[in-house]
Amino acid sequence: MDVLFFAEEPDPRPWMAALAQALPEARVHDWAAGGAPACDYAVCWKPPAAFFAGQRRLKAILNIGAGADAVLADTNLPLDVPVVRLDDAGMGAQMEEYVAWCAFHFLRRMDDYARAQRDALWDRLPPRARGAFPIGIMGLGVLGARVAAFMRDLGFPVRGWSASPKAIAGVECFAGPQALAAFLAPVRLLVCLLPLTDATRGILNRETLGMLPRGAALVNIARGGHLVEADLIALLDDAHLAGAVLDVFPVEPLPAASALWRHPRVVVTPHVSAMTLVEESMQQIAAKIRALEQGRPVVGVIDRARGY
Amino acid sequence: MDVLFFAEEPDPRPWMAALAQALPEARVHDWAAGGAPACDYAVCWKPPAAFFAGQRRLKAILNIGAGADAVLADTNLPLDVPVVRLDDAGMGAQMEEYVAWCAFHFLRRMDDYARAQRDALWDRLPPRARGAFPIGIMGLGVLGARVAAFMRDLGFPVRGWSASPKAIAGVECFAGPQALAAFLAPVRLLVCLLPLTDATRGILNRETLGMLPRGAALVNIARGGHLVEADLIALLDDAHLAGAVLDVFPVEPLPAASALWRHPRVVVTPHVSAMTLVEESMQQIAAKIRALEQGRPVVGVIDRARGY
Repeated sequence: MDVLFFAEEPDPRPWMAALAQALPEARVHDWAAGGAPACDYAVCWKPPAAFFAGQRRLKAILNIGAGADAVLADTNLPLDVPVVRLDDAGMGAQMEEYVAWCAFHFLRRMDDYARAQRDALWDRLPPRARGAFPIGIMGLGVLGARVAAFMRDLGFPVRGWSASPKAIAGVECFAGPQALAAFLAPVRLLVCLLPLTDATRGILNRETLGMLPRGAALVNIARGGHLVEADLIALLDDAHLAGAVLDVFPVEPLPAASALWRHPRVVVTPHVSAMTLVEESMQQIAAKIRALEQGRPVVGVIDRARGY
Repeated sequence: MDVLFFAEEPDPRPWMAALAQALPEARVHDWAAGGAPACDYAVCWKPPAAFFAGQRRLKAILNIGAGADAVLADTNLPLDVPVVRLDDAGMGAQMEEYVAWCAFHFLRRMDDYARAQRDALWDRLPPRARGAFPIGIMGLGVLGARVAAFMRDLGFPVRGWSASPKAIAGVECFAGPQALAAFLAPVRLLVCLLPLTDATRGILNRETLGMLPRGAALVNIARGGHLVEADLIALLDDAHLAGAVLDVFPVEPLPAASALWRHPRVVVTPHVSAMTLVEESMQQIAAKIRALEQGRPVVGVIDRARGY
């Protein structure tokens, strides 16, 4: 079995080595080194345009990530080959932590206290109760559902929104564009975990974010394309929104000239809310390839019409 | 029944009104207004030196707080009258949130990312696992035990230290000064929730904090007197400690001239980790007074020899 490999990483070698180790029955070919034969499987993260050229006998494409928007946007992507994304692979636990930090940060006004500290200002603000601080999760896939359950178990009221109806115990679930306003109305912290598709691009905009109550905050840990940046900044500057924590951006690394780096109500992190873990992800991809070889079903096959 | 009331609060009136409402069978006297008779009970927070003058028939002194160090330090405190402190009264839930924020803050390196943001620097740091980030709780009273259990349920390894031996399921417990070094050795986040007594004053010093592994962080939500400030600053400046979150100070409000306000690795909050909630605390004090009147036992009686 031949496997074609490419990962847009500062150093892709440990990734390829981990794949070779997890799948010893395969010959793993480094696409960047050139000369790879026509392969059975492609394992990739943000492949360049020429990656799929000449690959005529691929049985499946394995995406090294949960969001498959980058590979689906590749105009050379073979139409008839299944694209399989990562499931959790250690990302869920990381997203739980990241969202919990954001929730406690705004609930306990650590943003206000940080600003007060800059002015050496001792200013005690009224306490807020966890039970009166609803968290809204947009996107209830593997990761969204896991984060929703974690926040529910922490004692926050949690509501979820997704394109198709979902049910999660103890989480008030809403579905479809017509339910968006009702979903957003009481949300104090909105968390975006949606897949990036034509239907969700720009979904965090002046109109939707304006449906949040005054003083709400936003967390985007999905894709930069979900957010209309200028709309967010206008709502922060109007004080309609109290703050935003952004981990993803249309262009990454976020250019040094971006105003987001310097906005006093924006926390920027460098796409670390859930880092893909080398061992976990390559073991999962090896297991998926082995299942496909044996004709067994795999989870995570992308529906190209939906885009996730 | 006559109750004498004083609370060092910007506006003590809602506190006194809540006590009167919770204990309608009593006459509640505002000490600050003058002219109060000899009373049956005193309800107070940080009373002035003259508060106990002429109070010769007090049956008990009810402290509006969990830490009774301020009232115990009062040289006019009647020796033979029991001092009763608040139990949880809504403080436990707040301390859970505060400590969880601190734990996720350092685990997920939000401190490092905040510094990187100031320089518009996109710098992804290696992920750390919750299971390899031990939290150490000093003080396993009502609040310490509750915070320990909460952090354990979040998936952190938790160890606890106290003066006398304690047992908490899933928490590795240490007791006494001779066990302090073993307790501290692996701790990544040290949380002080001790009572302030002669035995614990200055317990967070160069020697003890130096027993923490390099890169550990400190949270003090007990009393300012536990910490030797100059020792903390030296250990931060040496990079032995990665950061500190301080909510309590020897003098409060923390003077504007304090270097802590401006230290890049110190988070200052204005004694808000657990705010005493008006309704909850006055209802608890009313219930304790009623129990004492009926000769029933109450929890929270201070052992003056121990100091808590």
